[in-house]
Amino acid sequence: MSSTQTAQLMDGAGLARRIVAEAARHASEITRRTGVTPCLATVLVGEDPASATYVRMKRARCARAGIASRFVGLPAATTTAELVDTLGSLSQDPDVHGILLQHPVGAHIDERAAFEAIAPEKDVDGVTMNSFGAMSFGLPGFTSCTPGGIMRLLDEYRVELAGRHAVVVGRSPILGKPVGMLLLARDATVTYCHSRTADLGAVLREADVVVAAVGRPRLIRGEDIKPGAVVIDAGYNPGNVGDVDFDSACERARLITPVPGGVGPMTIAVLLAQTVDAARQQTGATTDVRAEC
Amino acid sequence: MSSTQTAQLMDGAGLARRIVAEAARHASEITRRTGVTPCLATVLVGEDPASATYVRMKRARCARAGIASRFVGLPAATTTAELVDTLGSLSQDPDVHGILLQHPVGAHIDERAAFEAIAPEKDVDGVTMNSFGAMSFGLPGFTSCTPGGIMRLLDEYRVELAGRHAVVVGRSPILGKPVGMLLLARDATVTYCHSRTADLGAVLREADVVVAAVGRPRLIRGEDIKPGAVVIDAGYNPGNVGDVDFDSACERARLITPVPGGVGPMTIAVLLAQTVDAARQQTGATTDVRAEC
Repeated sequence: MSSTQTAQLMDGAGLARRIVAEAARHASEITRRTGVTPCLATVLVGEDPASATYVRMKRARCARAGIASRFVGLPAATTTAELVDTLGSLSQDPDVHGILLQHPVGAHIDERAAFEAIAPEKDVDGVTMNSFGAMSFGLPGFTSCTPGGIMRLLDEYRVELAGRHAVVVGRSPILGKPVGMLLLARDATVTYCHSRTADLGAVLREADVVVAAVGRPRLIRGEDIKPGAVVIDAGYNPGNVGDVDFDSACERARLITPVPGGVGPMTIAVLLAQTVDAARQQTGATTDVRAEC
Repeated sequence: MSSTQTAQLMDGAGLARRIVAEAARHASEITRRTGVTPCLATVLVGEDPASATYVRMKRARCARAGIASRFVGLPAATTTAELVDTLGSLSQDPDVHGILLQHPVGAHIDERAAFEAIAPEKDVDGVTMNSFGAMSFGLPGFTSCTPGGIMRLLDEYRVELAGRHAVVVGRSPILGKPVGMLLLARDATVTYCHSRTADLGAVLREADVVVAAVGRPRLIRGEDIKPGAVVIDAGYNPGNVGDVDFDSACERARLITPVPGGVGPMTIAVLLAQTVDAARQQTGATTDVRAEC
């Protein structure tokens, strides 16, 4: 409780390595038993350098885990209808088990229509309304990758959620909203805050668990952290800066994710694990995967 | 602020009458212009007397508003597959514009599978994952009826939501969860409370808007209402008792829904309005309806 307390770091990088190693074992087992190698299709629209780098990184991670990947690069001028067609074809393709559409796709494209063209059983990035419904209602389905990674981190550190107050800062469709629903499914009392919240500090000071997912550098400072709270920083800002002011938050939190090495590595680990799960389901190598982690 | 303050009643019954009258005008216009009468299919599984009464009431309201209804009564022993087939056929039937599956359907049936067999464009009761996603992401689609009714009531009384703290007590798939998402889409800070919430009173006392949707008679008492708050009681309990202790809440709230005559009549009004909207879209009489009210 004193100001000299230093929070324990939540080692996302280490947990992600174990999850990826397990996914690799399962991928190899599927390949051995069925002759089919799990395959992730990555779809990139346009030539944004950052997006191209993200896709390359994901494909490299797949390769190292024994997961095949198929790259589909589309020109920046691709229409919504063309992108929907491409995603529909991949959804039908029996050689593809998971589909990732790299965000963003360009302002002229209806991204929601594109996402919805991904078959739910191949939505390993958890971007469809079906996946959101599954996360919200505790039904079988895939999680959005960052929310799924956050839940696995909380479980790894045995963070009690039932009856605790979790405050999610941010409300994006693939991060803030779904992570709140996953926390609610685990019996947390959940508050969604955002840019219009009148007194963010006052809400945060009541939080047993904080999930920062808003993309504003060092928005959340230690003085707004309840002593002993668990702080998950899912913010990504230039210069490897999170949404939480790390040093001051460390003086109050009990557990905290560093940036980098916290939530970031978990996202891609969940993507790989869910791709292998999708391949297992589609090859009949196993039966079920649940939205809850 | 004094204990002698008496809250203004939010007249759901009156607003519902106006919404139904407007739906009736639109239904008549659609019939006149296209020769097609908007039609709601009501599906009842088994012979539970309360459920049968609800369906009868909804059909009678349809009839008075110039909306046709088609009743499909299925035996209690109906299987999930049979129910899915029935709902799939109604989804394909061009004479049916909206579909209502009366809840509950019996424990041996997978109600979620049944709901998902309803085509999104006919889901005028707002029970599918697609509708939940639409409400959550601000996309075109139908609202769940009670949440949609609550939003219309809040708008009718010009309740400011942006930046205000809305506390939803309850997290059911067609009431608590979607109303929270609709409030969030309107820029409220939203907290979900439920049976596992550690200190409900403490959370409630911070609420500018309370939505009680938990089904526990008089759970919420005046002492837990912040002076000047808006209190929406969506509870339905035996003896026309809501989830809010009305008399004590009236001494603190600025606006409050009575039970009966508050939220209840709004639910069926939204069902009728959305059925007419569905018919408009399907007959080409108009183009769009949005999840936001």
